[in-house]
Amino acid sequence: MAENREVTIYDIARHLNISAATVSRGLNNNPAVSKNTRKKITEAAQKLGYQSNTFASSLRSKSTHTLGVLVPRLNSHFMSSVLAGMEKAANKHGYNLIIAQSLEEAENEKQNADTMFNKRVDGLLISLAYDTSNLNHLEPFFKRNIPVVFFDRVQSHTSSISVVINNYEAAYKITSHLIDQGCRRIMHIGGNVLRNVYKDRFEGYRQALKDHDLPFQEKWHLVTALSEEDGTAAANHILGFPASKRPDAVFCANDTSAVYCMMALKAAGFRIPEDIAFAGFNNDPISKVIEPNLTTVDYSGETMGNTAVTNLINHLKGISNLYSTNSITLRANLIIRASSLKKVAGSKK
Amino acid sequence: MAENREVTIYDIARHLNISAATVSRGLNNNPAVSKNTRKKITEAAQKLGYQSNTFASSLRSKSTHTLGVLVPRLNSHFMSSVLAGMEKAANKHGYNLIIAQSLEEAENEKQNADTMFNKRVDGLLISLAYDTSNLNHLEPFFKRNIPVVFFDRVQSHTSSISVVINNYEAAYKITSHLIDQGCRRIMHIGGNVLRNVYKDRFEGYRQALKDHDLPFQEKWHLVTALSEEDGTAAANHILGFPASKRPDAVFCANDTSAVYCMMALKAAGFRIPEDIAFAGFNNDPISKVIEPNLTTVDYSGETMGNTAVTNLINHLKGISNLYSTNSITLRANLIIRASSLKKVAGSKK
Repeated sequence: MAENREVTIYDIARHLNISAATVSRGLNNNPAVSKNTRKKITEAAQKLGYQSNTFASSLRSKSTHTLGVLVPRLNSHFMSSVLAGMEKAANKHGYNLIIAQSLEEAENEKQNADTMFNKRVDGLLISLAYDTSNLNHLEPFFKRNIPVVFFDRVQSHTSSISVVINNYEAAYKITSHLIDQGCRRIMHIGGNVLRNVYKDRFEGYRQALKDHDLPFQEKWHLVTALSEEDGTAAANHILGFPASKRPDAVFCANDTSAVYCMMALKAAGFRIPEDIAFAGFNNDPISKVIEPNLTTVDYSGETMGNTAVTNLINHLKGISNLYSTNSITLRANLIIRASSLKKVAGSKK
Repeated sequence: MAENREVTIYDIARHLNISAATVSRGLNNNPAVSKNTRKKITEAAQKLGYQSNTFASSLRSKSTHTLGVLVPRLNSHFMSSVLAGMEKAANKHGYNLIIAQSLEEAENEKQNADTMFNKRVDGLLISLAYDTSNLNHLEPFFKRNIPVVFFDRVQSHTSSISVVINNYEAAYKITSHLIDQGCRRIMHIGGNVLRNVYKDRFEGYRQALKDHDLPFQEKWHLVTALSEEDGTAAANHILGFPASKRPDAVFCANDTSAVYCMMALKAAGFRIPEDIAFAGFNNDPISKVIEPNLTTVDYSGETMGNTAVTNLINHLKGISNLYSTNSITLRANLIIRASSLKKVAGSKK
């Protein structure tokens, strides 16, 4: 058999010495064909390298059974958990995922969205880039009624749904916990407030301070990209304060910045949590390895990915209507560990 | 305009009051159409929600510009770095990635491979599941000359290429380093030796012992899934030895098992590296956070992903021939940190 020629049902028919119509029915698992013959047909198809024509059938059905996934960066612990959850749900329902990353740039996000649109994905799952300022690049999807599900970094839109955690509440709770532990000068290392996740975490933090009659100072709010380097730089920022004006706690919008800030302050002789307490966000693997272990917010990427895809597929199958819901809020739990337990640390002395 | 009806070039033509032929030429960026008109056509296409027919053109060209990526698990630090590297390279050349995970099961891997085959990916990138024992499930690809690139967990095949690091050499070097630091009873926490990565790491370790006239004992080789729990269990295994027969070093096939074994032994009062030295593999984020920092092998997932995709695309474009090369071996560097520096730790006392 020539290696590059397409194998057709006629080849299978010739191979088995039966009619092409029988082969076609057998491949479609039609009970009019005996079980034994169906088995022979399937085996011959596999042996000869027959490829069912998904494309042609996509053209007919107008459905590709493919979902587009657009994320800021693929290589983060959180995002890889999201993808794992999405893939499980998609696979279970016979859908495939096409992935692309914006590398945090709106321009890449636009290009990737165009590609997904032209690849005719049945739906789009998107978490917005750091600097995306509007949703014009998604208009083609909205216009054609191709469902869009925002997750994690979302922006409200009438023709879409958002899957999120309550970032405001989680930040409010974790800040209140720090206050409850006796902290009074609490700093926040946050991200770009253009993105809901960072805006909400900042506002939850600020409201907790306000509700406990604690002052907020602009210089206690650092806006960074929350990288390892940003965590180390934040430590230097803290070391720059006169000793009497230093924060006694830091709430960081992710674990990476918290851990690197902690490591730099520990190296400078600070005791954690006695001199300065710490809280992060995400429950990344590093939060369980840093000493003392980091208080954080458990944020299940896997559940978020699974929920986003399941809702999208249910909409595509007509089981539920995506547009009737504005957002789905998932549970996020405060995980209290030694980095913030000032009272316990104090009583041990 | 009806929301669900497909927008055609005739709609654009009517909208601009020009001929459909001009619209078609304009969309294909044909210089016979004035720049100004081309711009108007593109804008109208976007405004009306025109979708170029990638499918129909795929059927014509027999190319989907889509690559299949099959991995054991999406949610590991290493694999998310690989995907990030793959996406960058694919995006640059106008290719998309369809992803699926086997969850370490051969049966899932087979099903995913079938799906990718029927989705008509232009090429397949695969890292094998924990228990995959043969390549029969890839025969359809080999038969149809659809290029297959193995990466990380590979198996040699005449019609494919493998992208790997030299696991044997890295393990040999890291074990020799432990011996050089004065360790004589070196244990190995490894993975399933059916997979090249774990087999080669084990053999590199064993050869280093042999070349230094050190004994190897079967009970010093634990085969595990290298999870957090397996690391903790390995610590209990070590605690089960009589004090005089305990290993004085552990070389783990990944950082996760090393870090969790270290944490359990630290909790039991062991000093690292004085009582027991440690080395891992992967250079995961946790390796820089554990105290003392973990000696490990730097293993760039991003480079591996980028290399695998670039070679695959060059083959598809006819720039180079994949089948003329058997394997590509990437650089892996030993990163020596405090967890193995017994001599330094000893001299500090």
